[in-house]
Amino acid sequence: MTINAPLDELIEVPAGLRHVIAAETRLGDVRGNEGFYHYRQYSAIDLAQQRTFEDVWFLMLRGRLPDARELAEFTKTVAALRVLPPDLLPVLTAAARAGTRFRPMAGLRTALSMLAETLELPPLWDADPATREHDALRCCAVTPTILAALHRLHQGLEPIAPHPNLPTAANWLYMLSGETPSPRAVRAVERYLIATIDHGFNPSTFTARVVASTGADIAAALIAAIGAFTGPLHGGAPDRALDTLDEIGTPDRIDAWVRSTVAAGGRIMGFGHAVYRTDDPRSVMLREIATEFGGPLVDFATTVESRVVELLAELKPGRRLYPNVEFYAGVVMELCGIPRPMFTPTFAVSRVIGWTANILEQADSPRIIRPAARYIGTPAPQPVP
Amino acid sequence: MTINAPLDELIEVPAGLRHVIAAETRLGDVRGNEGFYHYRQYSAIDLAQQRTFEDVWFLMLRGRLPDARELAEFTKTVAALRVLPPDLLPVLTAAARAGTRFRPMAGLRTALSMLAETLELPPLWDADPATREHDALRCCAVTPTILAALHRLHQGLEPIAPHPNLPTAANWLYMLSGETPSPRAVRAVERYLIATIDHGFNPSTFTARVVASTGADIAAALIAAIGAFTGPLHGGAPDRALDTLDEIGTPDRIDAWVRSTVAAGGRIMGFGHAVYRTDDPRSVMLREIATEFGGPLVDFATTVESRVVELLAELKPGRRLYPNVEFYAGVVMELCGIPRPMFTPTFAVSRVIGWTANILEQADSPRIIRPAARYIGTPAPQPVP
Repeated sequence: MTINAPLDELIEVPAGLRHVIAAETRLGDVRGNEGFYHYRQYSAIDLAQQRTFEDVWFLMLRGRLPDARELAEFTKTVAALRVLPPDLLPVLTAAARAGTRFRPMAGLRTALSMLAETLELPPLWDADPATREHDALRCCAVTPTILAALHRLHQGLEPIAPHPNLPTAANWLYMLSGETPSPRAVRAVERYLIATIDHGFNPSTFTARVVASTGADIAAALIAAIGAFTGPLHGGAPDRALDTLDEIGTPDRIDAWVRSTVAAGGRIMGFGHAVYRTDDPRSVMLREIATEFGGPLVDFATTVESRVVELLAELKPGRRLYPNVEFYAGVVMELCGIPRPMFTPTFAVSRVIGWTANILEQADSPRIIRPAARYIGTPAPQPVP
Repeated sequence: MTINAPLDELIEVPAGLRHVIAAETRLGDVRGNEGFYHYRQYSAIDLAQQRTFEDVWFLMLRGRLPDARELAEFTKTVAALRVLPPDLLPVLTAAARAGTRFRPMAGLRTALSMLAETLELPPLWDADPATREHDALRCCAVTPTILAALHRLHQGLEPIAPHPNLPTAANWLYMLSGETPSPRAVRAVERYLIATIDHGFNPSTFTARVVASTGADIAAALIAAIGAFTGPLHGGAPDRALDTLDEIGTPDRIDAWVRSTVAAGGRIMGFGHAVYRTDDPRSVMLREIATEFGGPLVDFATTVESRVVELLAELKPGRRLYPNVEFYAGVVMELCGIPRPMFTPTFAVSRVIGWTANILEQADSPRIIRPAARYIGTPAPQPVP
C-alpha cells in the first residue's frame, strides 16, 4: 500500500517500522515465504554452491559476475589491500588485551575506526564512485586481517600476515592457524561465507545505510553496522547454537533440556528467524556441508535438530520454528577448525561485503534518512522553576 | 494520519522516512513552525538561560530538575566518572597522530569503542536500568576528557587531567587550555552546551536509537551516532560558519561573495535548517551572548547576518533562510578561546547527553527497529552461469 501524507503531518506506521520501505535496492531480497533469497539476479545458495567468494563479491559491487580476466584482477586487487598499516598494531594489541573477556567484534570496530583516521577516508558525500568503491574494498579486505590479528594477539601470538596468493576463504583459515588449510575446509568455509554476504534489509544493514545517508565516511557506516550487529536482538551468533549442543550434551537429554528452557521462557538458540517461515535455505545448505564431513558431532546435531523441531511444534504450535543459519554454521565452523570465539567474526568477514555494497548503493542517493518521533511527555513549555 | 497495513505487505512512505514516526519520546520536541524546542516539559532556551548544565543533564535522565542536594550529588558523581582508564592513553595517542588531518570526532569514536572493551560495557539488553544509567553517565563524563586529551596530544602536549571541582563547562575549557577560564566564558559556553544537548529526532539521534534497539552496548549506539553526526548532510559544524566569515573577510565583500556562492550552487554555511522556518531559537540566544561580549568579530558577524538574510530572501525567494545554530555558535566559541578544531567537539560534549538519554529511552522498549527495502533489480532467480 502507498500512503501520501500532507507535508508536516506525522505518519503513523507499525512499531519498529515493520514492513515500512526505507530504501530501494538492486542488491537482493529475501522471500521468506518461499524460503528463498538472492543476490542481484541469482539465488544466493546457487552462487554459494557454484562460484567463488571473489566472484560473488564482484557481483555485489558491479551487478554482474566477472569473466576470468576480471576475476583474476579483482582477486589480485583485494589481496593487496589486505595488508594492515603498521601504525594499527598498537591499537590492535590494546584491543586484544582490553577487559577480561575477548570481544573481537568490538576490537574490529575500534580498529576500523582507527583505520579511517590513518587512511584519511573521505566522507562518502565528497568522494567519487571509484574512490568509494576502493575504500569499500579496502575496509572489506582488511577486516579478516584485523580479526585474525586480534585472535592471535589475544592468545599472545604474533599476527600472521595475509597470504598474497590465497583467496579470501583460504587466507582467513590460514591467518587464524598459520597452517595451510585443507581444500575441504576451505570450500566449506567459502560456501558459508558466500551464503552470509547479505540477507535482505536486516538491522545492521539498515544502520549502515542510515549513517551512509548522512554522507559520513564508509568506516563510520561500517562501525555503526558492527555495533547493531553485536546487539543480542540482531541475531547472527553461531557460537551460541553450538553452546546449546554442548549444554544438551547427549541425545537422551534433548527433551528435558528443551522443555525446561521453553518453560523458563528462554529461547532455543539456532531455531527460528524473523523472516523465514520455512526451512532457512542457509541452514539446509550448511546441513548438507556438515553431512559431507560426517562424524559424531554431525550425528548429534542432526538428532538434536529433528527432535527440537518436533518439540517446538508441540510447545509453540503455529510458530513454525526451524533451524536458522546459526545452527549448522556453528557445526561447520567447528569441523573446519575455527576457534569458537571466531565464529561470529567469520560471519563478519563475509557480511562486511554486504554492508559495504549497501553503503555504496545508499551513497548514490543524496537523501538523508530522517524519520520523526512523536512527543508523548508532559506538555511544554512549563515555566522553569 | 494513521495507517494499518496487512501483515507482510510493504508500506510505502515518503523518501527518507520523512515525517514517519519511528519512536515515541518523553525527552523533548522541536516545534519548527513556532521556532521553539523543549527538553522534557521546559523550553530548552529557558533552561540554558536559567539553569546549570548538570541541572539539565539530570533533567534529561530523570524527567525532573534536581533539588540542591541531588544536584550536588549528581555533580560529584559525574566529576568522578571523568577520569580516563590509563590503558586508553596509547589509543588516544595513536588517534591524535593518525593521518595528516586532525579528526577529533573520529578519535572520540575510536576511544569510546576501546573504552567499551576496557570497561566491559554490557549489552543494553542484559543490563538493568541502574547499570544502563551508570554506563550512560560514564560515557558522557569521559567524552570531554577524551576530546581534550586528543587536542593536547595532537599539539604534542600532555593531556590535562579533569578538575575534580569544576562543573562540566568550566572543566571543558580548563582541560583544553590548562588555565582557569573566566566566569564569562564559562557561562557563555555553558549556555551553548545546554542549548545543544538535544534537538528532536535528528539523524544521529535516530541512529543511536536504531543501534540501541538491537540491545547492543551503549558505546555501540554512541559510536554509531558519532558516525552519523560526522556526515556532511547532518549539520552541526560551527567551524564552517566561522570559515565563511573568514572567507568573506570585510563587509564590502558580502554581496559579491554570497551572489557568487549561490550562483555556483554552493550553500551558505550557517544559514537554513531542516526544521525551522523561523529564526532558530538557539541562534537568537547565541547572538545575544555574542553581543554581550561585543568587539569587531561580533560587529562583523551581525553585519554579515543581516545582509546574508536579505540577499538569500532575494536569491532564494520563499525559502526563509535564517541563521542556524552554527552561525553564532562559531562566533561565541571563538570569543571564549576555544580552538577552531574543537568547535564541533564542543557540540559533541553536550550532544552526547542527548544521545544517551535517547539510548536509555529506547532501551526500555524491547522492539527492534527493522524497516524493509523494496527490491527493484533484475527479477530473480536467473540461472547462475
